[in-house]
Amino acid sequence: MPPQIITLTTDFGLKDPYAAQLKAVILTLCPKATIVDTTHQIEKFNIRNGAYTLSCAAPYFPQGTIHVAVVDPGVGTQRRPIIIQTKKGFFVGPDNGLLLLAAKPQTIIAAHQITNPKFTLPHVCSTFHGRDIFAPAAAHLANGVAIDTFGEKIAIDELETPTFASVAVQETRVMGEVLHVDGFGNVITNVYPVDVKSLNVDLFAVELPCAQLKLGFSKTYGDVEPKQPLLLVGSHGYLEIALNQGSTADKLQIRVGDKIVFSVV
Amino acid sequence: MPPQIITLTTDFGLKDPYAAQLKAVILTLCPKATIVDTTHQIEKFNIRNGAYTLSCAAPYFPQGTIHVAVVDPGVGTQRRPIIIQTKKGFFVGPDNGLLLLAAKPQTIIAAHQITNPKFTLPHVCSTFHGRDIFAPAAAHLANGVAIDTFGEKIAIDELETPTFASVAVQETRVMGEVLHVDGFGNVITNVYPVDVKSLNVDLFAVELPCAQLKLGFSKTYGDVEPKQPLLLVGSHGYLEIALNQGSTADKLQIRVGDKIVFSVV
Amino acid sequence: MPPQIITLTTDFGLKDPYAAQLKAVILTLCPKATIVDTTHQIEKFNIRNGAYTLSCAAPYFPQGTIHVAVVDPGVGTQRRPIIIQTKKGFFVGPDNGLLLLAAKPQTIIAAHQITNPKFTLPHVCSTFHGRDIFAPAAAHLANGVAIDTFGEKIAIDELETPTFASVAVQETRVMGEVLHVDGFGNVITNVYPVDVKSLNVDLFAVELPCAQLKLGFSKTYGDVEPKQPLLLVGSHGYLEIALNQGSTADKLQIRVGDKIVFSVV
Repeated sequence: MPPQIITLTTDFGLKDPYAAQLKAVILTLCPKATIVDTTHQIEKFNIRNGAYTLSCAAPYFPQGTIHVAVVDPGVGTQRRPIIIQTKKGFFVGPDNGLLLLAAKPQTIIAAHQITNPKFTLPHVCSTFHGRDIFAPAAAHLANGVAIDTFGEKIAIDELETPTFASVAVQETRVMGEVLHVDGFGNVITNVYPVDVKSLNVDLFAVELPCAQLKLGFSKTYGDVEPKQPLLLVGSHGYLEIALNQGSTADKLQIRVGDKIVFSVV
Repeated sequence: MPPQIITLTTDFGLKDPYAAQLKAVILTLCPKATIVDTTHQIEKFNIRNGAYTLSCAAPYFPQGTIHVAVVDPGVGTQRRPIIIQTKKGFFVGPDNGLLLLAAKPQTIIAAHQITNPKFTLPHVCSTFHGRDIFAPAAAHLANGVAIDTFGEKIAIDELETPTFASVAVQETRVMGEVLHVDGFGNVITNVYPVDVKSLNVDLFAVELPCAQLKLGFSKTYGDVEPKQPLLLVGSHGYLEIALNQGSTADKLQIRVGDKIVFSVV
Repeated sequence: MPPQIITLTTDFGLKDPYAAQLKAVILTLCPKATIVDTTHQIEKFNIRNGAYTLSCAAPYFPQGTIHVAVVDPGVGTQRRPIIIQTKKGFFVGPDNGLLLLAAKPQTIIAAHQITNPKFTLPHVCSTFHGRDIFAPAAAHLANGVAIDTFGEKIAIDELETPTFASVAVQETRVMGEVLHVDGFGNVITNVYPVDVKSLNVDLFAVELPCAQLKLGFSKTYGDVEPKQPLLLVGSHGYLEIALNQGSTADKLQIRVGDKIVFSVV
């Protein structure tokens, strides 16, 4: 039997005992689990950063993997603890958009709240749902507990969807936003190639707050002259605006969260 | 059969190969071990910080877990390498107080030195007992070696007990110290609720070097006015002095190691 | 059956999802693997630092361990992806010297390129061989795939050998270099005791760019007067120049990469 993999993506850092507490809870409830850290160094409270990182890692894990993610500025408020089931596995965490970028490409089948006290720790601390709700839920899922026993169903279109998790595809344009700027200044958007396919063009007009470009797809940075921008599909799978031998973000004054529009020229 | 969990808590950091060497030694001697990092980023040589972190993590691990902890400024001196057996598992490390905060609440059954060369690596480096003594001891424990074969018994009250590991409970007062100040400035003491139970009061006089307070137990920060102090049992299980929307440590000039006295009003 | 251990040594850091992607690929192809992080915090692009760290960790892992290492400034160029088989296990990574310090003491049996597309991911990204070539190769090795099916054989003396991986042993002198300066200022060379054995002397003339010393072997720092230099075999196994209670590197103006010559007095 293959191992039951449970991944952890959090903003807990590595100095405090919090990540270890999640692992301890999981291994207590599901001794057979194989736990893999995606990272515990998501920028504190930065849901977008967590969503992006999880969405980069998740595609490489095998069928049946359970992903726990906790970047949770709303812990203790009315935001719902949820499980999302996809065709490939499960995502467990807060209903704040954190899970959506990774779950959507796997095709979401169902989403449920986690409210059944039978599947949380006996005492739920209002500031630590990672340990008391999400880790136990993942362990119980790994043990075969059915998703619909955790709590009531949530319609997929009622999941919290922050702007970074939403791309608007219209007839002549696709509107997304800047998801991440990497260490080289490359600008990674939340737009997938499939999103712009319906535009049915080879050359896009690209609108950014401080720049307007005309770009077709390149294969590698060397396809354009030095310091010239190019459009490519990065290793993360998203559309990326890069500069051959330079920082796109610096040259075009682009910041995470900026709106970006791809349209027919 | 459940996995044999061995946890690691050290000040080795994550850049050097030291933590990996411990894991390699453990897996060589006990291939079935499941190793879980609590943290390797304890502040260098800060025994109190290591003891606090381990005591936060340990309660969540399952019965039979073996905890290895190495924050060991006295390595190579006369301080003893020890194993502590509790009702719930084992603690392996230096006899410098590091293991006590975590072991005590589990009820200590026995403590032994590690002196039998049969259970260390063939060559013991005087500066790296983690790899050469503690990791092998944990692996042998996991393999079922009895604690009394590692070396001579130590009376529990003869274990090294630094001030942070010692709370004095008297008829009308309980004397402890400040164990940790967290990132919000909350002041975590080394006093457990059970320690102050015998005072049999609802309101405590709390003495600190630069402050005197009268506090009863609150449930959450919101129970008091903004910027007012409150007493609660934190998620770590210790008594904590917090400030609603503020830093207790800053306002009351409290530092780690400060003495704190809870007494009958 | 013992677990199949695969270690990872990279300069990926812990914030990005890269290390997790390697683990995901390995666990997908070889579910039984036990993955151990050596470190992901090798200094970026510093092959020497990666080689040194891996060489410190590898000796402690059991027979059959597969080591993956990725510090790969030449990724995407003509540098070859390779597997080195030793008497004790396998090393997988770029042919840039990274694997040699760890592999040599285990006695190298064979080296092969990784070119067979059957054993890489379907799409190989030109900037991420760790995920697309090295991780899959390690998983396939763990599954029992023979080394000679990955690609053509490389003569051992044709492996890329940077200066740090090469010690010249002559009749009256041994020429190496400074591999690492640790946090205490101790100077660790790339010379093993066996390298200087043929000189057949107890006292060495040691030449460094800014210093000339005469040193015999000491056992511990305390063997010499305070602030005096000494020669010893460190816990890493290499010859080390240390200073009793001081920094050798500061006092003798030594830097990583400096040439060092041990010769007959």
